[in-house]
Order: sequence, then C-alpha cells, then structure tokens
Amino acid sequence: MTKLVVSMPGSGLLADRLAAGLCAEHAEPRTRRFPDGESYVRLDTDCENKDLIVVGSLDRPDEKFLQLIFLCDLLRELGAARVVLCAPYLAYMRQDKRFRAGEAVTSQSFARILCRAVDGLVTVDPHLHRYRNLGDLYNVPTRVGHAAGLIADWIKTEVRRPLLVGPDSESEQWVADVAARAGVPHIVLEKTRRGDRDVEVSVPEVERWRDHRPVLVDDIISTAGTMIETVRHLGAAGLSAPMCVGVHGVFADDAHGELLGAGVQGIVTTNTIAHETNGIDVSGILIEALDDLFGE
Amino acid sequence: MTKLVVSMPGSGLLADRLAAGLCAEHAEPRTRRFPDGESYVRLDTDCENKDLIVVGSLDRPDEKFLQLIFLCDLLRELGAARVVLCAPYLAYMRQDKRFRAGEAVTSQSFARILCRAVDGLVTVDPHLHRYRNLGDLYNVPTRVGHAAGLIADWIKTEVRRPLLVGPDSESEQWVADVAARAGVPHIVLEKTRRGDRDVEVSVPEVERWRDHRPVLVDDIISTAGTMIETVRHLGAAGLSAPMCVGVHGVFADDAHGELLGAGVQGIVTTNTIAHETNGIDVSGILIEALDDLFGE
Repeated sequence: MTKLVVSMPGSGLLADRLAAGLCAEHAEPRTRRFPDGESYVRLDTDCENKDLIVVGSLDRPDEKFLQLIFLCDLLRELGAARVVLCAPYLAYMRQDKRFRAGEAVTSQSFARILCRAVDGLVTVDPHLHRYRNLGDLYNVPTRVGHAAGLIADWIKTEVRRPLLVGPDSESEQWVADVAARAGVPHIVLEKTRRGDRDVEVSVPEVERWRDHRPVLVDDIISTAGTMIETVRHLGAAGLSAPMCVGVHGVFADDAHGELLGAGVQGIVTTNTIAHETNGIDVSGILIEALDDLFGE
Repeated sequence: MTKLVVSMPGSGLLADRLAAGLCAEHAEPRTRRFPDGESYVRLDTDCENKDLIVVGSLDRPDEKFLQLIFLCDLLRELGAARVVLCAPYLAYMRQDKRFRAGEAVTSQSFARILCRAVDGLVTVDPHLHRYRNLGDLYNVPTRVGHAAGLIADWIKTEVRRPLLVGPDSESEQWVADVAARAGVPHIVLEKTRRGDRDVEVSVPEVERWRDHRPVLVDDIISTAGTMIETVRHLGAAGLSAPMCVGVHGVFADDAHGELLGAGVQGIVTTNTIAHETNGIDVSGILIEALDDLFGE
C-alpha cells in the first residue's frame, strides 16, 4: 500500500524525516484560522487507497485538536485506506483517574474522540502512570517508541563521567533504564509537589558524586519546576552544573529561559516537539513503530 | 425530572437567567488550563438522574471545545439522565460543503463529535445556508430559537422612522422577516466578497430614505467588515448614522472598536454571546426551546 505522510503545523521537519525513511511523499495541508476563531483545513493531494500517516505533536492540545480531527476526517473522506496518527508527544495522559469527586477524567474523553478519528496511533514514551499500557486507554492499534536507548547513546557520547539524576521517584524506572543502557551510575531524588509550579526536592548524599557531571533526565519538561529545583540543590551541594535531558520539551511559558538561567551546562531534548533544544532524533524509532503497525 | 443548569466560562449571566426561568439550580464547574496547555474540569454538584443543561456559547470554538466535551462526558459519568447543550451561538456552520477540492467540511466533523457528547442541542438562529435545518447536520434532537421577533420589538420601541438595511442578499430573508414583524420598510444591498476582511458593497437608490434611520441587521457580526462598508456607503449617500443590530456579536479582534469608529449611532446585540453591546435578551426563547425539547 502506498504511504503518504501529512504533517500538522509545527511537525513538518520530523515529517520530512519520516517520509524519507518510509519512502513516502510528504504533503503539508493548508491550515488557517478565520478571524472569528474557526479553523480551515485543506489538503490538495490524492489520498485514494493510501495509508496515511498524520504527523502532529500534541503539546498545547486544546488549540490544535479540532484542526487535527478535521484533517483526519478529511483524509478518510478523500479515500484513505488507513489513517494512522503519529503523535510523537501524546497529550492528556496525566488525569488518569478522578483524584477528587467531580473531576473529569480527561485522558479517557480525549482518547475516546481520537480513537474515532484514526485507525492507529504511534507515539514516543507516553506518560503512563496508572495505565499499564496505551492499549488500556486507546482502543485502536498502538505502537510506542522508547527514547531511552537514544538518550543513553547520547549521554555516552557527549558527557564525561556522567551521573544520572532522576528528579523524583516517578522517574526512577526511566532513569534506571537509561543508566543501565549507558552503563553509568544513577540516583533518584524525592519531590513534594505543592502546586503546578511549586515543587520541593531533597537530595541525599550528593557528596559522593563531586567529580561527576550530573545529568537530569525526565520524560517531560513542562514548567521545568522540578528540574530547576534539582539544579539548585545540586549546585548548593557543590556538584557541577548539570546537563538536562528531556524526551518531550513542552517548555510552558518561559520555562526554557528559566531553566537556562538556573545554571545548567546545557539542555537537550528529542524532536518529539520541535524546539531549539532538539538534539536527539526519534525518527528512527517512529519509523520502526509505523512499519510494525502497518505490517500487522 | 429535576433540571440542573451548568455554565461554561463566559456564559454565566445567561445561565443565571435560564436557571431562574426553568426553576433549576445553576452550578458553575471549575475549569482551568494547566501551564502545559491542557484543561482541567470539575463539577462538585450532584447530577444523578437530573436533566442537565450545559450553557456554553461556541464563539472562538477551538480553544473551548475540549473543555466542553470533557464537561459533557463528566456529567454523563456522574449519572445525568440527559445532557442537553444550550449553545446560544453555534460554531462551524459556514463550511457546509467542499467549495474547493480537498477542503475539510468542518461543519460535519464538528457536528459529529458534538452529537456523541450530548443528547440534545438548543441554539438561536444558526447560520443555515445550504442546510435547510439543523437536523440535516445534527442527529440529536434540536430546537432553534429565533431572535427576529425580539429584534423587531426592540426596533419598534427604540428607533424612530427606521429603515431596515440588509448588508447582502444572504441576509434578505432575515431582514425582510424582521421588517415585516416590525411593520417597517427594508432594502437589501449587494456585496462582493474578496477575502475574510475585504468586502465591497453597493447601495442602490438610498436617496429615497433620507428622513429614515437606517438599521443594519445581520445574524453574525464577526469582523464587521460588511457592516463597516455599509455604514460608509450610507454615510456617503447622505443618510443618517445607522443603528447596527446583530443577533450574534462575535466581534473578531477589534471589530467592535472599528464599527463604532465608522460612525454608527449605536450597536446592539442579543446576549447569545456575552458582550457590552448586549441589549436584547434571548433567555425567553431559549427557555421555550428547552421546555419543548425536554417535554417531547
């Protein structure tokens, strides 16, 4: 089946790489917003009996969501055989239960609408916490790429005497995995969250690692609140300026500038979300995941 | 069945009136946006076995849409008997066919998602053009309130020697209806649209109406481009400064200021979209429509 890659605004560069790897054409739809706030979507490319891959990262999802649905619906109407969403960063994974009475379980509502619009979903390291796997939430075929190997390779190549530091216990599995792949030591800090932007972090026994370069690794850098606190604690304890690595660089508001200003050696993210910090390319694992999904 | 009115942000005032008219409680959900752009919705009110009326106007729909869906899903999960959306202004009525190859027919995609989230829909004067009625698009029970009578009453009471002016042929049905109800004369201008914000209007035989007060009536005031052109043509022809009346005051960007600056006597809208120009209350026709829908 002929494949066609279609990109949402902001995901064009990654879509170029995916198209090259999949030996497919890459078409960019025209999207715009009318003055009244409604969206317009048009794709002037033959889709008939093709396998369509819609590449669109879902950071800032509310403003993008209807355009994505309009595009997926359109592709089906234009005769696409299958429409697979490649969302390198997947949104609405955090509210995975009703923590307080009357809360909307947004992960389920979001997944329900998306599943009606696509025939499959491919992503990188979704923020699975209470869900064991993506299939518990998405009832279409899914494939998940893991960036841990790419990040381990990057650390081995780019950082001398690294010490991996996980910002909290939630990240332990993550950090331990990357550390094992890279063959380097790791520690995990403990955090207490007081609000969206207010997080306290405690660092035990940092003195053991004075001659190492701390590498902070997390799946999502959003407000960067946790990382900034960790950077400060490591600095206060006399460790070197840390390198910060994130799979998904969401960077809410001025999080990027604030993290830079906290005294880091550098910030590196994968290209799941287009950003100037992108230094690790996930297109290889996405192509593998897509090939696997289409081959099933 | 006990009714409960729940309002989306921005629709609280109208929801208060509806709740009073329906002898129902009005509850406001907590909604907020996380720093990463995702939404949170919570309603801490008993919904079990109640008929829920969600009041939310759908101007600027893209940014509001997921919160609305999350709320409707939540109400069902909390045991609501029926969830009816009262969207005094309904979005995505314009792209009602594929004007050019490859265009998304957004009206259909939008309606499809909304219909899965609600058990009924009530609105005021939707922008029906190629669809004959709302049921051609929405496959849930719908009721439509018409503001023409309210506008005619307002004009009779507030304007001396009015001449109703329709900005284009699309509005003729509308303007003729209001004029007949008010028992006043009307004319309709011809417009040529060159783009979202670029519209040319021609005014035939305005000299006949020099001693009248022009009243421009349209269903939606969005960029106000058409109205502003019409105001200028009427002014150039020596007519009085017109009164502008819109059912739905969307007012994209600075449209309100620009229309005021074009030399109008005043601007009046209904409260389908909360705005400082609101001068005509549609709650009565919405209550009638809701009573009719629930009574069926």
